[in-house]
Amino acid sequence: MEEVAIVGVGQSTFTRKCGVSVRELCFQAYKEAMEGLDITKDDIDASIVCSAPEYDKQRTPSGLISEYLELTPKPTFYVESVCSSSSTGLRVAWSLIKSGLHKVVAVIGFQKMSELTSREAAERMGRGGDIIWESPFGITMPAGYAMYARAHMAKYDTTEEQMAMVRVKNSSYGARNPKANYRKELSIDDVMNSDVITSPLKMFDCCANCDGSSSIIVARGDVAKRVSKIPIWVIGVGAATDTMTMSGRKSVTGLECSQEAARQAYEMAGVKPEDIDVAEVHDCFTISEILAYEDLGFAKPGEGARLIEEKQTYADGKIPVNVDGGLLSKGHPIGATGGSQIRTIVRQLRGEATEAQVKGAEIGLVHNVGGVGQYGNVTILRR
Amino acid sequence: MEEVAIVGVGQSTFTRKCGVSVRELCFQAYKEAMEGLDITKDDIDASIVCSAPEYDKQRTPSGLISEYLELTPKPTFYVESVCSSSSTGLRVAWSLIKSGLHKVVAVIGFQKMSELTSREAAERMGRGGDIIWESPFGITMPAGYAMYARAHMAKYDTTEEQMAMVRVKNSSYGARNPKANYRKELSIDDVMNSDVITSPLKMFDCCANCDGSSSIIVARGDVAKRVSKIPIWVIGVGAATDTMTMSGRKSVTGLECSQEAARQAYEMAGVKPEDIDVAEVHDCFTISEILAYEDLGFAKPGEGARLIEEKQTYADGKIPVNVDGGLLSKGHPIGATGGSQIRTIVRQLRGEATEAQVKGAEIGLVHNVGGVGQYGNVTILRR
Repeated sequence: MEEVAIVGVGQSTFTRKCGVSVRELCFQAYKEAMEGLDITKDDIDASIVCSAPEYDKQRTPSGLISEYLELTPKPTFYVESVCSSSSTGLRVAWSLIKSGLHKVVAVIGFQKMSELTSREAAERMGRGGDIIWESPFGITMPAGYAMYARAHMAKYDTTEEQMAMVRVKNSSYGARNPKANYRKELSIDDVMNSDVITSPLKMFDCCANCDGSSSIIVARGDVAKRVSKIPIWVIGVGAATDTMTMSGRKSVTGLECSQEAARQAYEMAGVKPEDIDVAEVHDCFTISEILAYEDLGFAKPGEGARLIEEKQTYADGKIPVNVDGGLLSKGHPIGATGGSQIRTIVRQLRGEATEAQVKGAEIGLVHNVGGVGQYGNVTILRR
Repeated sequence: MEEVAIVGVGQSTFTRKCGVSVRELCFQAYKEAMEGLDITKDDIDASIVCSAPEYDKQRTPSGLISEYLELTPKPTFYVESVCSSSSTGLRVAWSLIKSGLHKVVAVIGFQKMSELTSREAAERMGRGGDIIWESPFGITMPAGYAMYARAHMAKYDTTEEQMAMVRVKNSSYGARNPKANYRKELSIDDVMNSDVITSPLKMFDCCANCDGSSSIIVARGDVAKRVSKIPIWVIGVGAATDTMTMSGRKSVTGLECSQEAARQAYEMAGVKPEDIDVAEVHDCFTISEILAYEDLGFAKPGEGARLIEEKQTYADGKIPVNVDGGLLSKGHPIGATGGSQIRTIVRQLRGEATEAQVKGAEIGLVHNVGGVGQYGNVTILRR
C-alpha cells in the first residue's frame, strides 16, 4: 500500500483580532501551504475543515471555505475534537488516502475567537466539559489543568518555578517566531508575579485565545514524491480518549489519552521516545508541557520538571520541545493549533526552521490534546 | 484489500421532544444497533459522532457520548456536513477500516432540537448559508428549496399537486413506521390546503425538526462475516459539494452535488440506476424528492414528477423510494437522518422491513443532502 506524506504546510499569523472573515483567514494558511508545490487546486480531491463550533456566527463552514478556495465540487466536511481538531483532521486525511479513496487532501484548521468577549469565550469553552455534572460547578479549562498541577505538585514535588521555566523557554522561542501572537521574552519573575487565574496557574502559565488558521496538504506517496522537493512522511497516527468527566479519571498526574495515543503512534512508526529529534507538545498551560514530557516518554513519571530545569527541552538539548514558542507564545486558535504544530515539525524536518533549527532533525513528534485531556492525538513524522 | 460491511443499525423514535439527555438519546440507537451481534463494546475500535452543532448546549459531544457508551479510551471525534453528517460519518468509517487503522467503527448520529424554540432553530439553520452575502437576505432552507421548486415548475411544468403526491406516498408509509414522528396519512387536499410556508411550499411539503438518534456499526469484511448473520456490504461511497452561495450555482433545477456523488457511487459500486432495488432519498421538502429522482438517474431531467404521478416509487413500483415515510413523515433530526436512512436500507436488504418490504431487494441506495444542496452523499449497499 502506498505511504502518505505531507507536501505543504501553512499558517496565518496568530493574533487577538484578525479583522478578516473566516474564509479569508483560512485562505491565508492555504496559500502558504500551496506555495512551491507542483499542483493546483484541481489536484485536490477533498478538503477537511477543522475547528470548534460556536465561536463565530457562520455554521457549517466547510462548504463556505471549500467554495472560497475554489474546491467545489470536491467533497468537504468538518471534523472536530476541540483543541486537537486539526490533528484529527490529518489522521482522517491519512485514512482517506490510505483507503484508496483520494490522492490529495487539504486539511484546513481555523478559529476566529475575536467575535466573542472573553467571558463569552470562557462560557463556550466550559460547555466543552460535561454540562450536567461538571462544568456548571466550575470545571473550566484552567480549573481542570490546575487540578492536574496541584496533584503533580503533591505527588512529585513539582514547583511553580519549574512550571514558570516552561514559559520562559517557550517565550524565548516565541520572540523569534514572526507568526506568534506573544513575542515578548519573559523571566521567571514575570511569570511568578503575574495575576493568579486558577491557583497555582497564573496568567503567564496560560495560553490565550486568538484568531488563526493552519493548512496541511497531504498526498499519496507517489504523488508526494512528484510534487514536492522534500515530502515529510506520516509514519504514526495515534488517537485516544479519556473520560469527559474529570471524576471518571483514574489518574490526575498524567493524561491517559496522551499515553495511549503515544503508545499507538510509536508502535505504528516503529520508533521509541529516544528516537524523536524534535517535538511539539500541547502546552495550553505550563503544567501541560511537563505532563507531556512524561506522557510521551521523554521523562519518567515525576521527572518531567527536571527536564525543563536542566534545559534539556531547549533547541540544543536532549529533546527539543516547542521551539516555535508553543501555544503559550503563539496563542491557541483552537481548530488551527494542531496544524500549526505540524507545520513547525515539517519545517524542522525539512531544515527550514531558520529561527530555531534543530540540527539534523529527521524524526519529529506532534502531541495535540483536546479539552482537559479528553482527546489525545500523537502524530509521528519522518523526513 | 478487505471489504467493509454494516453489521448493525439502530434508531431512536423520532419525536418533537425526547425528554432525555443527548447521551441517553444516543444510547437508544446504539443499543438497537448492537443487539444480536456477536461483539461487545470492547470490539469497537473507534466511534464517530455526527450532528450539527448549536442546537443543544453540550459542546464537543463525541467525548461525552463515547464515555457514556463505555468506549473510553478508544478514539472518538465529531464529523459534520449538516443534514448529511451521518452519511459522511459512514464514509469516514469506511476509510478508517479500509486504510487498515480499525476493524470495527461505530457511527452515532443525533440531534436534539427541542432545547430551542422554532424561531431559534430557524435562525441557526439560516446561518448554515453564507452569513455575509445570503442568509441575512432571507435564503433560509425552505426559501432555497422554494426557488428550486419554482425553477422546476417553470422549466418542466411540474405542479404543486405532483409535489403533494410525494407527501401522500410518504405519509402512507410513515403511518406504518413505529419510529416516525408523523404517522397520519395525508391526502392531496390535506397538503394543498395546508398553510403556505414559502410559496410554492406549504406546511405539508416540508419536513419538521425533531429529536432523534441513529447508529451504524461498520466492520471489516472478515469480522462482519463472523459477527453478523447478514452483513450488508458498503460498495459505493460518493460525496460532493456545490457552492455554499445560491448565487454561485450553475443550475437550480437539479442538485449538482447529488449528481456528482451519484456518479462516483455508481462507478465505485459498478452498478447503474436501474440496478437499484430500493432507495432512500433526502426528501426534506417534497420538491427535493422529485429532484432526487432526476439527480440519481431514476428519471430523466424534467420527468421526475411523472414518476410519482405513475406511482412508480411506491413499494411495488419500478423504483421504491422512501418506503419508511422519508424525512417528511419520520421528521428530520439533522445529524441522525442519514443513519436512519441507512438503517431502512439495511433492513430492506436483510428482508426485515415487515412494514413495507420490497420483495427480493438486493441492492439499495441512500441519498443524503446537507443544506440547500451544499453537500451531497450517495451510498450504495448490497446484500
